Formats: sequence, structure tokens, C-alpha cells
Amino acid sequence: MIQPRVLKGFRDSLPSQEIVKKQVIATLEEVFSSFGFVPIDTPVLEYTEVLLGKGGGETDKQIFHFVDNGGRDVAMRFDLTVPFARFMAGNLHKLPLPFKRYHIDKVWRGENPQKGRYREFYQCDFDIVGIDSAVADTEILLMMSDAFKAMGLSRFTIHLAHRGLLNAFLNHIDCGDHAVEILRIVDKLRKIGEQAVKNQLIEIIGSDEAAAAILNYITPKEGESTTQTIERLSELAGNEEEHTKRLKEIFALLNSLGIASNFILDPSITRGLDYYTGVVFETFLTDLPSIGSVCSGGRYNDLASLYTKEELPGVGSSIGLDRLLSALEELDASLAHSASSSDILILFLDETLLPLYLKTAQTLRESGVRCDLFLSDKKLMAQYKYGEAHEIPYALFVKGEDDFTLRNLEQRSDHELSLKEIVAQVKGTL
Amino acid sequence: MIQPRVLKGFRDSLPSQEIVKKQVIATLEEVFSSFGFVPIDTPVLEYTEVLLGKGGGETDKQIFHFVDNGGRDVAMRFDLTVPFARFMAGNLHKLPLPFKRYHIDKVWRGENPQKGRYREFYQCDFDIVGIDSAVADTEILLMMSDAFKAMGLSRFTIHLAHRGLLNAFLNHIDCGDHAVEILRIVDKLRKIGEQAVKNQLIEIIGSDEAAAAILNYITPKEGESTTQTIERLSELAGNEEEHTKRLKEIFALLNSLGIASNFILDPSITRGLDYYTGVVFETFLTDLPSIGSVCSGGRYNDLASLYTKEELPGVGSSIGLDRLLSALEELDASLAHSASSSDILILFLDETLLPLYLKTAQTLRESGVRCDLFLSDKKLMAQYKYGEAHEIPYALFVKGEDDFTLRNLEQRSDHELSLKEIVAQVKGTL
Repeated sequence: MIQPRVLKGFRDSLPSQEIVKKQVIATLEEVFSSFGFVPIDTPVLEYTEVLLGKGGGETDKQIFHFVDNGGRDVAMRFDLTVPFARFMAGNLHKLPLPFKRYHIDKVWRGENPQKGRYREFYQCDFDIVGIDSAVADTEILLMMSDAFKAMGLSRFTIHLAHRGLLNAFLNHIDCGDHAVEILRIVDKLRKIGEQAVKNQLIEIIGSDEAAAAILNYITPKEGESTTQTIERLSELAGNEEEHTKRLKEIFALLNSLGIASNFILDPSITRGLDYYTGVVFETFLTDLPSIGSVCSGGRYNDLASLYTKEELPGVGSSIGLDRLLSALEELDASLAHSASSSDILILFLDETLLPLYLKTAQTLRESGVRCDLFLSDKKLMAQYKYGEAHEIPYALFVKGEDDFTLRNLEQRSDHELSLKEIVAQVKGTL
Repeated sequence: MIQPRVLKGFRDSLPSQEIVKKQVIATLEEVFSSFGFVPIDTPVLEYTEVLLGKGGGETDKQIFHFVDNGGRDVAMRFDLTVPFARFMAGNLHKLPLPFKRYHIDKVWRGENPQKGRYREFYQCDFDIVGIDSAVADTEILLMMSDAFKAMGLSRFTIHLAHRGLLNAFLNHIDCGDHAVEILRIVDKLRKIGEQAVKNQLIEIIGSDEAAAAILNYITPKEGESTTQTIERLSELAGNEEEHTKRLKEIFALLNSLGIASNFILDPSITRGLDYYTGVVFETFLTDLPSIGSVCSGGRYNDLASLYTKEELPGVGSSIGLDRLLSALEELDASLAHSASSSDILILFLDETLLPLYLKTAQTLRESGVRCDLFLSDKKLMAQYKYGEAHEIPYALFVKGEDDFTLRNLEQRSDHELSLKEIVAQVKGTL
């Protein structure tokens, strides 16, 4: 006998979890499709060299890679961004630009598993590539907003900043050489606090004054309007014009759509990665700030420079699906409570009525009612228990050709109804 | 610069392919859900020992396996049956029996790629475990039938036989010792023809008479009714009773549901694997017989004996999704032609109208219309071309607050319509 164990950092998805996950993904896909975004898929395995590019470094130890039977060094994808860049470079001639894509699937990393962190997990990415404009930036932000609303999470704030403007500011105060380290430190503000950030900045830059200037730049001012903040930041960056204009355009569009209240200009947002060059953003749930950003991204000016000379500017965002699923559960969102496998359980009481049970199930299914048939004539209590275990709201007694009793399993109430009434009852209350 | 190549036997899925694949999967999932079947998921990576069990053999060379950073011998799943057995054994106490599950996802095998065969491909499995009854067998068959109808493939025949009855027959004619080899040979009937099967049988059994008896058993008789065939097979098997009764029950239920015409008793169906013990079946498309069975399976009497002492009889079936997708394309099924990314493309003509474009898109989306916005003021021809490349049926000129012209891109006809009329037009014709 072999012990049916799973690997450390991996897990099965039971039906109650899988149903919720599928519904969340379907909800997201519906929003993405409503914006004309299209799905793509890429192989789980790729050449290690293609995925890792020149610099392996940190990532190298975390990825699952091996030599296959053909002697090729191959790796399992560790994110959906690198395969997307490779995909764009390899299929450019087949794709009309600008290209709006989404990709929701598993990725693998050999990190040490911690609470809520697994070696197999989901990413959900969406991007617009082939264009650099305020309306593209806004469309990504609008789609994020619609996605959270569609999931029943309407209490969220998307924090926005502009990486180009921050870089201009750092150059203006002669800190441009340390930009990468500074961004990494500032990115930790929420975690380690203002004082620690200041100390670390001083250590890097060697100047109290510059550190104070940076803290001043990234700290929101009470009572300031968004326009005033943009003007102030622009001034601090030496009257920067290009990025300032973009920020203004984005906020003007958000305002015209009547959704600006879900957005806040927050100059402390930097997104650690070198990659970003324009607007950057993070999303926080009002009722669950502690879990951190549930959807982050930004604008980059060249997606696939590793693989092609074609310049592909873009803007994209990524939802941490596993984190989102915990949030939905913790916030008791209705999406997290829709794990029923069926609408109706047809009870099995008399073997001679089997053809009628199957026929009734068939008719109900044709009316769009999900219908499970209990498969043996066990005691009624066992059949109810099965229904409850699957969170099925109704049980149906089929007693004759036109003789039905519908039982509400939660309320334990019985009603004699026609098939047509049963369909209405089930659909009306769902 | 790194060449953006993919591994041999692997491939990208472009939007037009991915949209169709997702729609086919959604259609299947809807049918499965309507029967109360629930989804599960298992890790892509498992302990090699757990997946391969005692006997590695043939499979061993085909699976992707390696030693991970923690020194564990791990493998990528090569089917969805073994992980399901492991899943059932490991989660038995959490699952109410009978358990009806489906699982649609990728698996990996290091086979030599041929036309239509890839190293990364999809399987779609559905099973009922924890019960051995005619109604369970019938439910799987009924669900297969509903699935093909839902995909628009109503011209199909499911060929049915009973492995237990065939085994009883082989024992009755004293060929029981060679049963496994005989089943493998008979399974090739469709490929190699009657004479070759006969020759190979003689070679194994060493008796012309027995070989002729087997050919007689597996060959359908013209003009015989299903009941007559069952009676004849039963007689040939020495008046076998148990399996004969089951076959009769299944056909009686199929008849009572009015779907028997899609089923045929075909004693030549064996399904090579040792695994099966009861009813076995294969599905052929009337208009595409050459591609072979698109959905096959059968009843087994113990799913997870490798991992648990708990006996888990079951019945299950598997759709070859990649083969099905080619079939849908070849047969010009409507599902294969629904690759449009959006219902409407909003044209970008005047930058000052951008807020109105976004607002119009938002309103259309709220009415359930998928709406793509062209993102720059390129020439109109370029915008039409983008729409055509994405198979978007309509383009929309937004000229003012209540001033719209809807263009049918295929017919090249323009209509002045209100937003409400636009929604009706788009939804009505879709």
C-alpha cells in the first residue's frame, strides 16, 4: 500500500473550494471579456534559458527546473509575465496591436511554504501592450475597479502613483544614482514605518536632507486635492511636465466616469521592480487592509526586450488569486458561499420509479436546474445528509408522473408543487 | 537577444484558439454541473512513487520526473485517473459517497510528438465512485450524450459492451488464461481488421476454433435486436446471469429516457486496460469516424486499491479534449466559430470625446454587451481591420451624447440607433 500523500507546499482542491475558485475565475473572465480582453495560454514547461533570461539570481533557486529526457534544461513557469513577453515576441505577426490579454493559471515556485503561501499557486494577469496612452492606463484601472465590484468587494481603494515622476524627482535632488535602492526602501513604508524608511534612506544616500526630501515627497498631505498634490509633486520634481500631464489625464478620465472615489493619489507607491516606468498602483480592501495589496501593477515601456527588438510599451496588473480567495472567505462575501453542487437532489425511494427519476431530472436540467440524483435506496436520513454535505438547498420526492413534493432542506418544509412551479421556486430563490 | 522558442511538443494557445477551448470547457462544465457533478483539482507535481505505484514500466519513460531542490523524486501528472485515486484515498473522510466528480486540466507525457499529439495536452474525466449499479452506469452514459448534444454534435453513437460478460465468455470457452492478450488484440479490430485479429488470436490461443468463437462473439449480427444480442451473448457465455441483467437494465433505462438510438450494443468494444470490469464504451462521431473514439470509459471495481483498503467501485469516462477540438473545427461546429473577442468595437475618432467613449462602453457593459474600445485615433481603416482581426461583428461611432451609428462590419451597413436599440440589436443577432 502506498501512502496517498501530497508534496510539501502543494494541496488538493476539494469540491467546495474548487467550485468557489471556478466561480471567482468565471466572474473575473466575464469582466475581462466585457472589455474585449482575450485569453491566451502558454506551456507550463519552457526552456530554462528562455524563462530566466540573462540574470537568474534570486529566482534561480526558486524555480522548478530539470533536464528532460531529450537533454534539454527545462523549467516550470514561475510567473505569467515572462511567458507573456516570450509569447508576444514569438507571435507578434499574428497579433493585432494594441493587444489586450488576460491569463489566469497556475505557476510554481520552490519557496519555503508559509501560512497562506504555496509552491503551486494561481496568478491572474491582464495587460494592454503596444500603446502608451492615458486611456490605456485608465482602462486597466477601470477594469480593476469593475472586477472588484463584480466580486462583491465594493469597499476598496486603488492607490496610484507615477514612477516616472518619482524618478524625475530623484534626479532633481541628485539621488538618481541610488534610484533602485531608494524605490525598494520606500516600497517597504507600509511594513516597516516612516522612521525605519528614513534611517535606511540615510544609510544609502548619506544625506539627512535628501532623505527628508524623499519622505516629504512620498507623504500625502492632509486636505490637499488630487490636482494640488499632482502640482506639488511636479514642482518637487523640478516642474516636470510629461508625467504630470499623464497623471492629470488619468484622474480627469476617472472623474468623468464617476469612479474617482475608489482611487487615491499616493506617492508612496513605488512597486519595487525596475520594470515599471509610468503609472503604478496597488489595491487595498477597506475591511481587510492587513492582507496588503490584492491587485497591483503599472506601466512599463518595453515588455519583451529580452526576445525582440520591437518595442512593446504596455500597462498591466495582476491579482493575487489565492490572497483574494482568502479575503472573500474572511469577508464572508457571497461568492465564497456558493459551493452548492446542485439546486435539487432527487430522492431515491422506490427502484421501480427509477425511469421516472431520470426523466424528471432530465426535464429539470432542460429548464436550467442543476439536478443531482441520489443513486441508491438508502434511508431517507442518509439521503438528506448527502444533500446537506453538498449544500444542496432542495430535495425532491418524485412519487408519480405528476406527483412531486419539494423539500426545503434548511427549513425542513415540504410543498406539493408542479414541475413548472418547482423550476420557478428554485430559480427564484437562487 | 534570446530566441523566443517553445519546447518540442509544446505550443502557445492564441486567443482565437483559447476562446474556443474555454467555451468548450464551459459547455462541458455546465452539463456536468447540471448532473450534480463537482469539480476537484490536484497538484501538477506529485511524488513519483505515488503516481507510478509499483509498476513503472512503459509509463516511466514517458513521464516528466526529476529530483527537486529538497531531494524528492517528483513527477508531473501524466493523467487525471491516478491523481484521482490518490485524492479519493487521501480525502475519503471528507467526501460523501457516492462521489460524482469531474476534472478538466492539462497533463504531460514525454511521447514523441506526432501530428495532433503533444507533450502537453488536456484530459477531461468524470466519474461516479462508491457505488456499483445500473443507474450509475446509465447516468454516465446519459451525461456523455447530453455533453455531445450541448456541443452541437448530435450525430454520434456510443458503442457499449460488458467486460465482465466477455470475460465470462472467455472462461466458458477455456480461454480465460489469455484474457488480457485477447482483449488487447480484439481492441485493435477497428484498426487492423477481422482477418488480422483472427490470425493474432490463433497465434496466442493456438486454436482455430476458439479464435473463430471469439470472432463470432464480437461480431454484431445483422437484424438482431439489442435484447436478442444480449440473450445470444449470455448464452455464448454459458448462460451468464449477473452481467446480462446489468446490460438489460442499462438498455431499459436508456429506452425509458428516449435516447437509446444514440447507443449501440457492440461486443467488440473491450478497452484494452485490465482496469475495467463492467460496462465499457466508446463514442464515435457519425460524420468523422476516422478520428476514432472521442469519449471512452467503463466500470471498474476498485479505483484506489494502491492507496487504501477501502473498496471504491466506480464508473467513469474521459473525453479527449484536443481530439474533440479538432473535430469541432473539422465539422464546422458553431462552437468552433465563436472566437470573437467582443460584440462591439467603439471607434476612436476624436480625442476630446474620450470620456464619452469610456462612458458609452461602461453603459453597454452594464447591459451585458462586451465592448472593446480602440485606443488611439488611427485611420478608420486600421480600426476596422483591428475589429475584423478580432472577429468583432459591430463597430460603433459615438458622435455625441445621444448620437450613435452602429456599423455591421461584415455587411458594411450603418444604422443610426439609440443605445437601447444597439443593445437589442447586438444581443438579438448573437
